[in-house]
Parts: sequence; C-alpha cells; structure tokens
Amino acid sequence: MSERLYHLNGELVAADEATVSVEDRGFLYGDAAFETMRAYGGHVFGWDAHMDRLAETCEILGLEHGLSQNDLKTRVNETLEANDLNEAYIRLSITRGVQPGKLTPRRDVTPTVVIIVKPLARGGREGTPVWEGPATLQTVKTKRVPDAAVPARAKTHNYLNGILARLELRVTDADEALMVDLEGKLTEGATSNLFFVQDNALRTPSLECPVLPGITRRVVMELAADEGIPLEEGHYTPDQVRQADEVFVTNSTWEIRPVEVVDGISIGETPGAGSLTTLLSRLFDSRIETQYYG
Amino acid sequence: MSERLYHLNGELVAADEATVSVEDRGFLYGDAAFETMRAYGGHVFGWDAHMDRLAETCEILGLEHGLSQNDLKTRVNETLEANDLNEAYIRLSITRGVQPGKLTPRRDVTPTVVIIVKPLARGGREGTPVWEGPATLQTVKTKRVPDAAVPARAKTHNYLNGILARLELRVTDADEALMVDLEGKLTEGATSNLFFVQDNALRTPSLECPVLPGITRRVVMELAADEGIPLEEGHYTPDQVRQADEVFVTNSTWEIRPVEVVDGISIGETPGAGSLTTLLSRLFDSRIETQYYG
Repeated sequence: MSERLYHLNGELVAADEATVSVEDRGFLYGDAAFETMRAYGGHVFGWDAHMDRLAETCEILGLEHGLSQNDLKTRVNETLEANDLNEAYIRLSITRGVQPGKLTPRRDVTPTVVIIVKPLARGGREGTPVWEGPATLQTVKTKRVPDAAVPARAKTHNYLNGILARLELRVTDADEALMVDLEGKLTEGATSNLFFVQDNALRTPSLECPVLPGITRRVVMELAADEGIPLEEGHYTPDQVRQADEVFVTNSTWEIRPVEVVDGISIGETPGAGSLTTLLSRLFDSRIETQYYG
Repeated sequence: MSERLYHLNGELVAADEATVSVEDRGFLYGDAAFETMRAYGGHVFGWDAHMDRLAETCEILGLEHGLSQNDLKTRVNETLEANDLNEAYIRLSITRGVQPGKLTPRRDVTPTVVIIVKPLARGGREGTPVWEGPATLQTVKTKRVPDAAVPARAKTHNYLNGILARLELRVTDADEALMVDLEGKLTEGATSNLFFVQDNALRTPSLECPVLPGITRRVVMELAADEGIPLEEGHYTPDQVRQADEVFVTNSTWEIRPVEVVDGISIGETPGAGSLTTLLSRLFDSRIETQYYG
C-alpha cells in the first residue's frame, strides 16, 4: 500500500511530512477546534451535525477561520480519495495558526487546517465494531472541567482533563474513565457519552452536566424516540450506573459500545450487551446500512 | 541580523523550519509541559525553580521524558548562543510526542523538546521593562479551571482557559484578565500572579485558590520577607483589589508590573506605581543587577 496522505492547509502531503510550526497556537496553547468523524462507504456520517458543532466551538473560541463547510467537505473528500479510503476515521482540526504576540488572540487569522485519516472496518449491519469487546468503566478522581471555565460543548485541542482521567486507569483494568462534576454527578467518559438503562428507561446525563453534545449521542436519542423507548436526560450519580440493568457508551468511532463492568461491578444479570443496548445497536447499524451501503 | 534559530529535538533549526508532526500529542491534545523563562546577561533567571516546576508538571502528566536538567540547560544555552542573545524570552516545551493509539497516553515516550527564544531588553537597574505602562485589569466571567479538573500547578499547553479570559477583554481597554474561581474568589491573571496592598500589608491569593506557583511570585514574596514587609497569602474578592492602595501583577517576562485600573476603578490616590510596588521593583532590579550584571 502507498503511503498515507494527510490534508494540510489545502494540500495533500505525506503523513510524515504533515507538520505545523512550533509557534502555531494549536501547538503552543491547544488553541484549536476539531471534530472526529467517521466515513461509511465514502460518506461522512452526520456531516451537518459535525459542522454545526465545529461552528459552535469556533464561535466560543472567537475563531473566524473564513472557511466554508463546502470547502472543508471538499478537503475531507480529497483526503479520503487520495488514500483510497471508504471506511475511515477522520480528524479535522482548525487552529488559530501563527500570530504575533503571546496569549491574547488576534482577530486576523490565517488558520491551520489539518485532516488526518485512518482506515477503519466497514460499519452497518455487515460491519465490525472497532472495539474488541464490551468496555470496562472506572469512575476517576479527576473532575470534568466546569462549563464556566471552558464550555464542554467546545471540542478543542485542550484535552488534558480527559488525559488525566485516562492516566488514572493505569492501575486498573478499565478502558474508559467515567468523569463526575465537582458535585459528584455523572458527566461523561473521557472520549464518550454515557447511557444506562434503569426501570426500562434509557437515561443519559443532560448537556448542562456538562457533557460534550456527541453526534452519536444524539442519533441514539433519535433512535430511542422513534422506537418509543422512554428516554430521560438528567443528573445522576455513579451509584445509579453501577446498579443499572444496562450501560453503554457512544462516540463516532465506537458507535454504541456495551459496558460490562463499572467500578468493578458487573452490569446486568447476564454477560454481554443487554436487550435494549442490542436493539439500539441493531437500529444504528440498520440506519448506517440503509444510508451508506443501500 | 541572521535568521532566528530554535532548538528542536536536540538540533538547532531555522525558526521557520521548526515544526512538529500534526500527530504530536502536544498538537492533538495540548499534552505537553512548558516553562516560560527569562535570560539576563546570558543566564536563565530562577533556573532551578523553573526545573522544579517543570518536573512537577511532568509528574502530574505522568510524562517520563528521561531528559536531565543538565541536558535541558545545555540546549537552552546552545539556543541563546546560536542567536547571540544574552537578554531573552525563552519557552521550553516537552511534549509526549507521537504515540500509537488515541487519547490514552503510553508509558513509552519519545518526547518532543522545543526551545523558542526571542530578544528582550536588558533587565536590572539599568534595564527597560517589557511593558509600555501600568496594566489595566478586568475581572472576567470565565472562571479559573479548578484543581480537581486540571491542577493549576501544572503548566501545560492547555491554555484555553486563559485565552477565553483574554477574549473577554476585546470589548474593554484592559490588557490582563483577572480570573476568579467558581465561588467568586480571586485567583490570578491569565498569564500573571496578582498582588495588592491593603492596610500596609502585601496580599496575594494563596496557591490553593488555585494559582500557578509563579517563579516571580515567589521571588517577590522572598523580597518582601527580607524587607520586613507584612505578607499574607489568602482568599480575596475582586472588591478588595478594586479598593486596594496598590496593585501589581508578576510573571517572568513582565517581572513586577504596576496596575493602574481594576474593573474601571483607579487604584490608589495618585497615578503610577505605589510606594511599596516601587520599592519591590527596585529590590527586584537590584537582585537581577547584582546576580547577572555585577
């Protein structure tokens, strides 16, 4: 196979030559917005939703990059085509670029635009999950950054909060960190949204917990509504999740990943995904199959 | 003058060729430690203190870079010499480099080490401040990230909290953002520590506010102690600073910078630096003069 190509400021470049200045604000300060997306059959899943969220992140950062969604779409498509990839992980970043001065951002921006792609397995009904098995969650001591400090709905290159959470897992068998807010209420995983089933209703922490408004999170909520499954967005404690009948986490690459253990406690009566988790996974796969492979 | 040279992974390279991979964790996640230092007469001020803080940051990040302080000092000195700089701003960054996988950091690290330098004016008694005049502070709505989410004593490439604070200044005349914690108590500026004088005593928010343990902050506290000036580390409100007799902010490049206005309110009875601020600035300059130009 030929070498991977990334998209950098409008050009396709060899992956190992895709670099940014050490004075790029994305490097110096994590002053950048990004989206993690997934392509199925050559098409980006939830493109409009990703673009809306990217726009909101840039608005929070006061980052006027001047690039249209069409321009960004062209770059993503070029990157997929150049790598002959239909099934892919895509990371699109827009930084505030290099600016004179130090921390205070200038209005005049020459953005750095980076698109990284990696191959993934096919999705849909005939697809293979990217994960090898159900997740093990562990509630960590690192608390989610509150919205008043950095809004959770901004998806940025400032990811140390999640990294510190994941570092706590080194002494455990867990593969995802469950983060609570300063009052001990559940928020989300380091890179995933959380759902659980209690009293036959699907529950997920509400966006003000704070929680990143995951694209897959929203799709799962739509699927549940279509199916008439009771759904509640609320404020919950880790103990409720430990005692739940089913638990799963979502993100764009994992899609719907069942959770088998939370804080060392087995979830549900039988091993493997619960019935509601299985149902939602099948509905999700069907939607992908129809939309992208139909 | 010849082109600026930066130090990148052990090599001196032209500034505009100093780049890092778009997959460097310092870029993807701000997963990096850094120190901002100042050289006077070719010597780095407070080197040991900066190295102690860098070590603490790396410990918090679980980042075992394997570089000795001597090695880092050699690189800094090489960079200063290559640029023929005795008076300089120095930014030393160590990132977790490129790693396989996604967010979860691996133990095995090939760090990216970057040293950026810029010329500054001479310091000491015969020096010139880097700032043009006293600072204007504005209390902002963006709250300081609490220690429980990301410890303030870790100086990392995750600087969006301060950037969001500085963005709020766009509609003001202020040049530094004063940040409070979630309970409304004072912490620090976006890139500076805060001091104020009330009832003839020097006061500064204590480290648990949370506050970055500034090297200049500590030197000012030592100078005050040597001079018998009463000093208190405590928890304060913005209102106390607005009503203070004197206010100043500190960091490694600004040194001691007087503050003339806080939230639109003039500080002190007469314009310019107050008497205690002036005294501490002279003591600071004398220490620099004796230590580095004597």
